[in-house]
Amino acid sequence: MYVTKNEQREKAGLPGLEHITLAGNADGLSRLSVWQQSIAPGAATPPHRHECEEVVVVKSGSGELHVEGKVIPFGADSTITVPSNVLHQIFNTGETPLEITAALSASPVEVFLPDGARLDLPWRT
Amino acid sequence: MYVTKNEQREKAGLPGLEHITLAGNADGLSRLSVWQQSIAPGAATPPHRHECEEVVVVKSGSGELHVEGKVIPFGADSTITVPSNVLHQIFNTGETPLEITAALSASPVEVFLPDGARLDLPWRT
Repeated sequence: MYVTKNEQREKAGLPGLEHITLAGNADGLSRLSVWQQSIAPGAATPPHRHECEEVVVVKSGSGELHVEGKVIPFGADSTITVPSNVLHQIFNTGETPLEITAALSASPVEVFLPDGARLDLPWRT
Repeated sequence: MYVTKNEQREKAGLPGLEHITLAGNADGLSRLSVWQQSIAPGAATPPHRHECEEVVVVKSGSGELHVEGKVIPFGADSTITVPSNVLHQIFNTGETPLEITAALSASPVEVFLPDGARLDLPWRT
């Protein structure tokens, strides 16, 4: 299956966060996952880290990246680069949904909370 | 540099193809590259393969994926998944620019033509 329609993908989510796995392990990939997410105004990802690299392309909306004690604002048409194992959190600080596409250099992706506990995601990674 | 503005990235291209490297080796990544490309109506990528996995998210426009003797049409809001080392080519068969974001599971990315020759890309991979 080389081509899939995004709207036909299974939807999942966390509080304030809608998620679609656009491609990943179930598509035969082992080194790459691509996720589409919409974060509601006022919502955020959990603070987390993973052992893979991550690149987040911001399609619309605005927010803040919290990373290594820094707060970095960003808007649409920006790209966020997160090295392996760096704790980070993305907030929607705007008044419209924050629409992002995230690429991660692993599949499945293992995600860890600040205390080291594994975060069991409710979607196929 | 965790956040960059896409419009401030260096532009490059091939005939009929505009390219921006949103993230890659120059940003400290070694296992992930993310590219933004606009392919003009009637234009195409070269036929090529790479040793990494690739996921292409189609933002707007329409086209065809040529892969393993198949011709697979696609439209906006689709996702193309290409395993490692599979020869492929993406055509814009529509009348508007084909806008895509491509994630690749390596950085830099080495690209090869059907005859095995390396394709020297005019952008940082």
